Formats: sequence, C-alpha cells, structure tokens
Amino acid sequence: MGRWQPGSRERLQGAALELFSEQGFERTTVAEIANRVGVTTRTFFRHFVDKRDVLFADTEQHERQLADATAGAPAELAPLDAIIAAIAGLDWQEIAPRAAQRQRQMVIAASPELTERELIKLNALTAAFANGLQRRGTEEATALLAAQTGLTVYRTAYRRWIDADTETEIAHIIDAVLADLRAIVTA
Amino acid sequence: MGRWQPGSRERLQGAALELFSEQGFERTTVAEIANRVGVTTRTFFRHFVDKRDVLFADTEQHERQLADATAGAPAELAPLDAIIAAIAGLDWQEIAPRAAQRQRQMVIAASPELTERELIKLNALTAAFANGLQRRGTEEATALLAAQTGLTVYRTAYRRWIDADTETEIAHIIDAVLADLRAIVTA
Repeated sequence: MGRWQPGSRERLQGAALELFSEQGFERTTVAEIANRVGVTTRTFFRHFVDKRDVLFADTEQHERQLADATAGAPAELAPLDAIIAAIAGLDWQEIAPRAAQRQRQMVIAASPELTERELIKLNALTAAFANGLQRRGTEEATALLAAQTGLTVYRTAYRRWIDADTETEIAHIIDAVLADLRAIVTA
Repeated sequence: MGRWQPGSRERLQGAALELFSEQGFERTTVAEIANRVGVTTRTFFRHFVDKRDVLFADTEQHERQLADATAGAPAELAPLDAIIAAIAGLDWQEIAPRAAQRQRQMVIAASPELTERELIKLNALTAAFANGLQRRGTEEATALLAAQTGLTVYRTAYRRWIDADTETEIAHIIDAVLADLRAIVTA
C-alpha cells in the first residue's frame, strides 16, 4: 500500500459529496475531487475504482455485516425479528453523519445512473438478509419473503431517520415502521 | 405505420425468447431475430427500440393498468387490499403463456444487464402502486409502505405462479402469499 495520509479516504468521500451536491455527479471529475483534498488522482484510485464507487464503496461491508448479524441473532427470534435485530444493531450515525447521508441520498436521487446502482445494492441486501436467515435454518420460501419484508422496513426506517429533524432513536423509528406495516398487512 | 403483417410483433417476441434461451441474450442479434420470423430488421425496429426492449416493451402498459386498477378499486378496500385487487385482476395467462413467462424470467436471471433493467421496472411498479393509492386518498407515507409491501406480494405470487406445475388459480396463490406475509409480520 502507498504512503497516503491517514484519513484521505474519508476526506475524499467528503469532498466528492460536496462536489456532487454543488455541481452534480455527472459534471464532477475525479481530478476535481482529488484536487479539493490536495492529493493526486493516483491516490484517489488507490481508494476507489471510479467516482461512483465513492458513494457505494462501503455497501458490501454493510451487506456482510447485516447478513452475519441476521444469521447470528438469538435462535428464538422469528425470521423478521432476526433481520430487525440486525438492522437495529447497526450504528447508523457512525457510518456517516446524518447530514452527509441525507446529502448522499439526494445526489443518488438526482442521477438515473446512481439510482440504478442503488437498486442493485438494495437487491443485494435483500439476498444478504435471505442468506442470513437460511444460515439460521429458515426454509427458502419464508426466507425470501421475510427478506423482502425486512428490506421494506430497512428502506422505510432509513428514509424516516434521514428526514427526521430531531435526534430520534433509530430503535423508535423501526418500532413505528413495524407498527405501520402490521396495520397495513392485517387491515 | 408500415405494412408489416398482423402479429409480427408477437412472432418477433416469440422468436427472440427462443434465441435468447438457446444461445444467450448477449450473443443474439436483431438480424437473427428478424430472420427467424422472416421479416427485415427494419420491421423489427418498427416494433422495438432494441433487442432488450423485446422483453420489456409491455411493462409500462402493465404499470399503468396496475396503477389505474389500484386507484379505481372499491373505496372501502384498505390500501394493501386495493393493490391486491389490482394484481388479482390482471389476466396473467393472457399476458403470455406461463411457459413463455418462465422462459423470460430465466433469460433475465442469466444476464446482469437484464436483471438491472428488471429492478428498474420493479421500482417503477412500486411507484405506480403508490401513485394509485395516493389518487384514492391514501397519505404518502402509508402509500409508500403499502406499495412496497404490495410489490413483495406481487413478486412472490408471480414467482410461485411461474414455478407452479399445475394450473393453480392466481387468486389462491395470492391468498397463500398474504397468509405467509401475515405470519411473518405478526410472529
């Protein structure tokens, strides 16, 4: 590995997000991102495959974490509850400050290319949930249905968390989403 | 419009599906598809933008149908039930014979490019369900959650219908999926 400064990965992510927000994803170049941080494009490419990768570089790690946490949830939990426990166990604020995550979602929503990428990632996350459930013995049909339902809870809770003004606890948001979902499914 | 034979659109779709299954989507050319039906590539391009479009040309029409049917479902139905009524009201067998739809899904699953396209279409369908619900007065947050849940029911029921050996009624499959979903959400 090279001799870049510690933290340049995070600084590149911050600079990219700023530039994407200011002037749009399509109009931003790797050179501009590197320049804003004061590193070379070579350093950029040590950390990321391309500028799109800046926004999605961490998602595979989260997929693995969520699959493992689902598989390892207490045995007595029902399938959906195992997924919920995995989601609630993530430190969302630690992944990135909420304002940065809100900005990231706005950048993605503004670009068809990034929206496509996001849909692929969400599909991979559904597969990760199903995989986690099957590792704990849930049979396939139930695992697939619970995984899709888990993704709905995840997306909805994440969206509400990002949009929330106050420091609402993620656990409370998830509980509220689950209550809404139960009302919808049993109406 | 030109003077192509009646039915050439359907024949092109059938020939494309055969060729994609036999030799793969990537390796099939528009010229081969047109050739198998005995028409020119010009006729092909009167019906479809490109070879990928053969597989997705009808999906926008189905989105509109499902959005309209959701919006127009009896006023006393709860949001998810309005979506279910729309799904159950489609004549799935009439869209294409089940064997052809099974073949189509296998072609899509074998190609990352087509899988991406399918995910975009499913996302558009979720938006269509939400749109249909909002037109009947459902507030946005509930509409979004019910639409995602409706998509889960749709995908699961469609998959089970495609995989079924016997002529199981789609209404029975939907009922079974709903029962499974209720069990997962209320466990």
